[in-house]
Amino acid sequence: MASKSEQDPVVPHRRNFLRRSVALAGGALAAGGAARAAPLPVQSASKEPGRVIEETAYGMPSKFEAHVKRRRTDVLKNRQNLSDWSMTPLQHQPGIITPNGLVYERHHAGTPDVDPKTHRLAIHGMVKQPLQFTMDDLVRYPSVSRFYFLECSGNGLTDWLKPASNTVQQTHGLLSGALWTGVPASTLMEEAGIDPRGKWALFEGADGSAHTRSVPMEKVLDDTLIVYAMNGEALRPENGYPVRALMPGWEGNISVKWLRRIKVGDQPWHFRSETARYTDPMPEGKWRQFSMVMECKSVITSPSGGQQLKGPGFYEVTGLAWSGAGKVRAVDVSFDGGKNWREATLEEPIMDKCLTRFKIGWNWNGAPAVLMSRAVDSTGYVQPTVQDMTKVRAIVGFVQHHNAIQPWTVNAKGEVRNAIGQA
Amino acid sequence: MASKSEQDPVVPHRRNFLRRSVALAGGALAAGGAARAAPLPVQSASKEPGRVIEETAYGMPSKFEAHVKRRRTDVLKNRQNLSDWSMTPLQHQPGIITPNGLVYERHHAGTPDVDPKTHRLAIHGMVKQPLQFTMDDLVRYPSVSRFYFLECSGNGLTDWLKPASNTVQQTHGLLSGALWTGVPASTLMEEAGIDPRGKWALFEGADGSAHTRSVPMEKVLDDTLIVYAMNGEALRPENGYPVRALMPGWEGNISVKWLRRIKVGDQPWHFRSETARYTDPMPEGKWRQFSMVMECKSVITSPSGGQQLKGPGFYEVTGLAWSGAGKVRAVDVSFDGGKNWREATLEEPIMDKCLTRFKIGWNWNGAPAVLMSRAVDSTGYVQPTVQDMTKVRAIVGFVQHHNAIQPWTVNAKGEVRNAIGQA
Repeated sequence: MASKSEQDPVVPHRRNFLRRSVALAGGALAAGGAARAAPLPVQSASKEPGRVIEETAYGMPSKFEAHVKRRRTDVLKNRQNLSDWSMTPLQHQPGIITPNGLVYERHHAGTPDVDPKTHRLAIHGMVKQPLQFTMDDLVRYPSVSRFYFLECSGNGLTDWLKPASNTVQQTHGLLSGALWTGVPASTLMEEAGIDPRGKWALFEGADGSAHTRSVPMEKVLDDTLIVYAMNGEALRPENGYPVRALMPGWEGNISVKWLRRIKVGDQPWHFRSETARYTDPMPEGKWRQFSMVMECKSVITSPSGGQQLKGPGFYEVTGLAWSGAGKVRAVDVSFDGGKNWREATLEEPIMDKCLTRFKIGWNWNGAPAVLMSRAVDSTGYVQPTVQDMTKVRAIVGFVQHHNAIQPWTVNAKGEVRNAIGQA
Repeated sequence: MASKSEQDPVVPHRRNFLRRSVALAGGALAAGGAARAAPLPVQSASKEPGRVIEETAYGMPSKFEAHVKRRRTDVLKNRQNLSDWSMTPLQHQPGIITPNGLVYERHHAGTPDVDPKTHRLAIHGMVKQPLQFTMDDLVRYPSVSRFYFLECSGNGLTDWLKPASNTVQQTHGLLSGALWTGVPASTLMEEAGIDPRGKWALFEGADGSAHTRSVPMEKVLDDTLIVYAMNGEALRPENGYPVRALMPGWEGNISVKWLRRIKVGDQPWHFRSETARYTDPMPEGKWRQFSMVMECKSVITSPSGGQQLKGPGFYEVTGLAWSGAGKVRAVDVSFDGGKNWREATLEEPIMDKCLTRFKIGWNWNGAPAVLMSRAVDSTGYVQPTVQDMTKVRAIVGFVQHHNAIQPWTVNAKGEVRNAIGQA
C-alpha cells in the first residue's frame, strides 16, 4: 500500500528509534529532545494540603488547561440569526473520544433548554399505530451503546483551494467521537408498524429552527439510534438534550437534535436543508441532493497548523481517520508532499464508522517537509486529493463534504502551516 | 453456563419481548409502560431563540441533570486529615465510559494544583542513567491510548455482611472506566536502563501525602502506563494532573497520581500503604500484603438500590462487569436469589481489564424478586458470593477487595433495596 524510500528518515520501531536517537544525538530522544540526566534530589511533594472534595461539584479541567476549548469560527459572522458553530480542539485530543465539554456544536437557532419532563417524541404518518414517548418511556426500551464519529458536512468548507484557517481545530474541528447510548430506531418503528408505502421519514427538532431532514427508511431501520446519552451521561444541551437522532457515518445535520417527531412518508420532503443547504455543486453546474455519507477522510493532528517543532529529532506523528462507509483499513503518511508514503500504525479497537487513531514515528532532520495522511476504508475507497475532487465537484461558494488530503508544511524553523491547495 | 428455568418470566429476544408485551398488556411495552397512542398534533418547537455559543465556555451538563454527581461517603467522617473520596453515580452511567466530571476521586491529602510547567518526573535508583522528564519531554514519546477500568480496593468495604449503603453509587461507585493516554512505562525504563538487581519500583506522588507504593518490575514492564490524558483531554486535577501511573487491573491506589518519581530497587519498601492499609485479613489472623489484582466482579446498575420500578412489565436489566485478570467472558443473572441463572448479553467491544456492559430483558410479574449478577473472566474465575469469601477472608474492620455478588431485592411495591449478606 505504501511505497518506501531509502532516504526516508523515519525509524519504524520504538526500540530502534530509541537506540538510534541515543546514538545520533548522544542523549535520549535526540537533540532538543526529552529526558535529561536528573539533577537529584527529585522535586519535593506539596507542602500544602490540597483541595477537599466538594460534594456538589461536577468535575472540571485544571486551570492550566484553560486554552483547551471549543472555538467559534469567525469566517461567517452570522450570529444575528443564531445559526452558529464551535469546533473541537483536535490538536489537544488524544485517542478517539471527545470529552463532552469539547464536542463540537452546530445549530440553526441557538441551544434550547428542553425540559425532559415535558418533552415528547411522536412517531406518526404512514404507520399503523401513531406513538408518543416520554423520556421515561424511551429509557425503558432495550438500549445499545456504540462508538461513532460525528462530523458536520461543512467541516473544512473554508479551506479548499487555499488556506483560510491556521489550526486543525479550524480546518477539521467540526468532528467529534463519542460513545452514544440510545434505542435502535428500528425498535420504535417496529412498534409503530410501518405502512408498506413508508419509504422516507421526516426527523424534526424542537429547537427554534425546527430543523428537519428527510431520511430514507433503509437508514432508519439499519443503524439509526434514538440517543439520550453520550460518553456515559445524558446528552449535553448543545448536543440535543434530552433526545436526538444519530445516523452513524452520515453528515451531522441529519442526526436531528432535540428530536420531537418522526413522520413516515412515501417520498422526501425537500426541506430548505435539502435544497438551499447541504447539497453539492457538480462540475456541470447542477447540485447534488442527499449525499449523506461522510466519505473516508483523515488528518494529522500533531504536528498540525500553528504548532512549533522544537528542533530536529524524534516526533510521534499522529492523527485521526474515519469513514461513514465502514472501518478504516489503513492510513499512509507522507513526509515529502506525497512523493513517498509509509503505512502508519492503527490503534485498536478499530470500529465501524468510528474515529481511528493512527501513529507513525518521524525523525525530523530539520529540513522543510510536507506532511500528509491518506486513509483507505474497508470498501477500498482511497481518500482523494483536492485536485482529485475538483474533477468531480465544482468548488464554488461554501462547498460541503470536503474529505480531501490535508497537507501541513514544516519550515526550517519548525513552524507548521496549513498548505491546503498549495502542496 | 446458565441454568434455565421454565418458570423464568424473562423473554430473551427483543422481537419476542415486544410481541409478547403487546399481547400481554394490550399496549406497547406492557402495563404501566412506555409508548402510548399519540394525541397529535406533536409538541411544538421552541418559540424562543436558544442560547448562543460562548467562545470561552467548557461545556456543562443540562441544568435538569444536576442530580447526577459524584457523592462523598459519610460513613467515614475523616475530612480532618483530608483523606477522602467521592463516588461515581453508576446508576446514571450507560455504556463503559465514565465522563471525566464524574470519575471517582480518592486521595490522602486533598487535590494539589500541580503546575505542568514546573512539574518533573524522575527515574532513579538502580538504573544505569537517572532521568528527569518535563511534561514537554513526556508527550514527545510514542504514546498509547487504552480503555481500562479503575477501581479502589476499598470499593464496597462498607457493605459486607449487612447493608450500610442504599445505592449502587455508594456500594460500587469507587469504580470508573476511561480511555487512558500515556507512555508505556517500559519505554522510559528502557531508556533509563534497569540494573539487573532492580526487581521493584517505588512510585511516589507529589501531593501532600507523598503517597507511595512498591510495584513489582514485571508489572511496570508489562502494561503500566505513565498517563497524562483521559477520555480525550488532559487528566483532571483530582485524577492526577498532569501525570500519573496507571497499572491496569490493579487496585486504584497503586496507580499513583501526581507522579514525581519512580525509584528502582531490589525489594519492596513496605510503606504504610502496604502495612497499615491496603492489606487483607485472612481467616487465620494474618494479613496478606500485595494482593493487587482486582478480581472479577460485576454489579447490576439498573434496577439497583433506591430505584423504584413503575409496575409490572418489561425492564432492561443492565450492569457492569470487569476483571483485573483479563476479559469478561460471561455474566449470568438471577431473578430469584441465585436459584436459577440466565446468561446476559455482553456489549461489544469487550476489552482486557476494561468495564464490560451486560444486558438482559426481564418481564417483572409484580412479585418480590432478588436480582443478582455473577461474572466469569477469561481465566475461568467465577465471581464469589459473600459466603464464599468469608471462608477465605476474615471480615473484620474495613476489609478491602470486596468482589462478591451484589443482591438487590425488589418488593411488591417495586422498591429496590440493597440485600448484601441477606439474600
